[in-house]
Amino acid sequence: MDILIKNISTLIQDADHILNDKDILIEDNKIKKIGNILPEDLPSHCKIIEGDRKVVMPGLINAHTHLYQSMLRGCRDDLTLTPWCEKVIFPFIDIVYKDCKKYNAAIGYYWSMLSSIEMIHNGITCCIDMDLNVGGIPKAWQDIGMRGITAFTIANRWVPKEFCHDNNILKEEIEQYIKEWQQDYSDEGLVQVFLAPSTLFCCTPELMEWVVEKTEEYNLGLQIHISETKWENQDALKEFGTTPLEFLEKINLLRRPISAAHCIYLTDKEIDIAARRGVILVYNPKSNMKLSDGIAPIAKMLKKGVTVALGTDGPASNDQLDMFEEMRMGSLLQKVFSEEPGVLSASEIFKMATENGAKAARINAGTIEEGKLADLIILNLNKAHSAPVNKVIQNIVYCGKNTNVETVMINGKVIMEDGKILTVDEEGLTRESIKQGEEILKRIDFNKP
Amino acid sequence: MDILIKNISTLIQDADHILNDKDILIEDNKIKKIGNILPEDLPSHCKIIEGDRKVVMPGLINAHTHLYQSMLRGCRDDLTLTPWCEKVIFPFIDIVYKDCKKYNAAIGYYWSMLSSIEMIHNGITCCIDMDLNVGGIPKAWQDIGMRGITAFTIANRWVPKEFCHDNNILKEEIEQYIKEWQQDYSDEGLVQVFLAPSTLFCCTPELMEWVVEKTEEYNLGLQIHISETKWENQDALKEFGTTPLEFLEKINLLRRPISAAHCIYLTDKEIDIAARRGVILVYNPKSNMKLSDGIAPIAKMLKKGVTVALGTDGPASNDQLDMFEEMRMGSLLQKVFSEEPGVLSASEIFKMATENGAKAARINAGTIEEGKLADLIILNLNKAHSAPVNKVIQNIVYCGKNTNVETVMINGKVIMEDGKILTVDEEGLTRESIKQGEEILKRIDFNKP
Repeated sequence: MDILIKNISTLIQDADHILNDKDILIEDNKIKKIGNILPEDLPSHCKIIEGDRKVVMPGLINAHTHLYQSMLRGCRDDLTLTPWCEKVIFPFIDIVYKDCKKYNAAIGYYWSMLSSIEMIHNGITCCIDMDLNVGGIPKAWQDIGMRGITAFTIANRWVPKEFCHDNNILKEEIEQYIKEWQQDYSDEGLVQVFLAPSTLFCCTPELMEWVVEKTEEYNLGLQIHISETKWENQDALKEFGTTPLEFLEKINLLRRPISAAHCIYLTDKEIDIAARRGVILVYNPKSNMKLSDGIAPIAKMLKKGVTVALGTDGPASNDQLDMFEEMRMGSLLQKVFSEEPGVLSASEIFKMATENGAKAARINAGTIEEGKLADLIILNLNKAHSAPVNKVIQNIVYCGKNTNVETVMINGKVIMEDGKILTVDEEGLTRESIKQGEEILKRIDFNKP
Repeated sequence: MDILIKNISTLIQDADHILNDKDILIEDNKIKKIGNILPEDLPSHCKIIEGDRKVVMPGLINAHTHLYQSMLRGCRDDLTLTPWCEKVIFPFIDIVYKDCKKYNAAIGYYWSMLSSIEMIHNGITCCIDMDLNVGGIPKAWQDIGMRGITAFTIANRWVPKEFCHDNNILKEEIEQYIKEWQQDYSDEGLVQVFLAPSTLFCCTPELMEWVVEKTEEYNLGLQIHISETKWENQDALKEFGTTPLEFLEKINLLRRPISAAHCIYLTDKEIDIAARRGVILVYNPKSNMKLSDGIAPIAKMLKKGVTVALGTDGPASNDQLDMFEEMRMGSLLQKVFSEEPGVLSASEIFKMATENGAKAARINAGTIEEGKLADLIILNLNKAHSAPVNKVIQNIVYCGKNTNVETVMINGKVIMEDGKILTVDEEGLTRESIKQGEEILKRIDFNKP
């Protein structure tokens, strides 16, 4: 059914273009027309959504996350990356992989569903999810109607041996996964496959080269963690004589479009490489704060013309999937870090969370324009915590909350209306997902020193 | 009417004491009994609140704010403290004071109401509000049933001349205000008066001395901004030869219980003074980030045994009144700043936002114990964004949101139930407050370079 969003008081097309009192016509999964649409120009059977005193904006795009960690929120708040992997992440993965027969698709489905319910309430219409390879994850997105990039996580070293498949088996699994899920996307579906070599230190250069070849063969995106810690840089210097991103450039792996998460310790030379080669960097401020990784030099990246997107990272190091909060924390952190309040304005971080996120996800969305995918959200800012509205983008960035999000539209379909998800039984699925998570968690001791 | 909270799955008495499956009996405005209460021991006419699968915790206490700034959220995000005062704060104050006849009590009532609606939804049961002295503010708290400390803001220099009354008139106004409102508190009411010399550079030492004498005469609390910027320290060094807190100690103004907001640039000697003299410091992380003031050395303060509370500061530099978010940002900021993830744990910041806040506010609350004021909140953490619950205080600190807060009880009265405020028409008052704010804002140009 076609949809008309009628008489929108404030239409944020992108961070720099705001219109007032307009209509938006949605046909199939795309934005057909923006303007003042006469009743006689409406298709028959058109659903009408009233936009008076509301704000319409592009859906938020979470450009880097690990949805399985929704099961692991609140476990530890005192560990740096490596011990945190050892004490929080690996024990969970171990159980999930060992119990594969029992959980397999089911558990992936539930953590993906739990996370998607959270994200939709927070106005997130698309995520790039580097996840455990257990199946079921994209199925949840199809059921709830969320757009997702399922980034197949690849590692053949550093992680515990029992998680590393033989290279040939791993390669076969990857190809199978691509064939199973990329089909949905080519069919204008919600799900797209990326390949995600976890880090340079988790993948041998030979495997990295094979992965890049596969992204060429199937025209896939690629996401990787880069320079999340100082240790990672030291390790790459020891093994390769250069820091990670520079090494990837050197061996010509940047010939494909890639997005790189974290990038806290990029050298100036690497920031130049990112600008020149169109590498999209993904800023994950809250996670970087919690693990005390460090503070990415975002101001410098922007000055050099790098495209920066924004992500929550996984909820075990955040512990939320909330891009409103991520926007404001990302902005505030840069202001205090640089001792310059003008750094990373609301508009700049808004662009990262929408337009640049769409670039990272390689989707035709992130702004509200004719011909773009109809992935958008309708906000009511007339709430005690977010009004009076002085400058709409500042109010959204510094005050926006789940309770402002009334309507969520993804791929031209209304997924949430009046704060209620329409596509699935959200209460029942939340309850069941929590129960499934609790059963695994009982088996892990998170108190080890 | 007496109230029984029955069969609470998780009862957080304080950061270190968590009980399971207990009942709480509330009589008048206090917690009468915690335990397993038999039906025959219940008073007649007892309201029963079901606690199964819920978490009860002390209400959050916002230990430093300026509620009038709820009208000014989202105005600027590119200014340090002094130009921000000149371009955002002073133009607003100027209109409010000039139009006193027109707005007077009304406008103060509305910004206080708007803020209180926001705070109650965020589980805040008490705030210390350094506000404009226009009247109407505590009346809003009485109407909605919120506990508040109305800290009369005092300045006789640095601020624009037209805001400075003649010292004698000012002193008369202060005494009048004390007499009008402190009466409510002595009567076990919701409202308590503090005196709040804005800063040392805003008040002559003579006025400071007079203020401290008045707090002795009427037994009032005192709150002041201390060392929010480097400039403030330099200014005090120039005028007095010492930094601000050390100067207050030197002239014996710390003889009374005081709380000091910000304290970013305290010297080691001043941290020792705070510990020795029982000065309560109030940490305001988000505001300090937005104005790029700097990062308070909280870890060092805690190590030296200082009592630290937590505040949002005003919503023009935050831009929210959300203590869940303030807790997690306060914690995460310290972790990344100190490069040590164990710094400022969830339990420590939880204590700041509850128990230590009560000390700053000088109220018999902040923990759930028999004999304490019944200021508490009931959370449902079984939501997609906050479950599974691994460690309850970590889940509250890192995932807590307004949508977790179901019930708010203040002074033994249920103020909010199932997320709806019972005491006032919140929708109508929100609408009217926003309208009142918009009318003033129209008259200010927030785009000045």
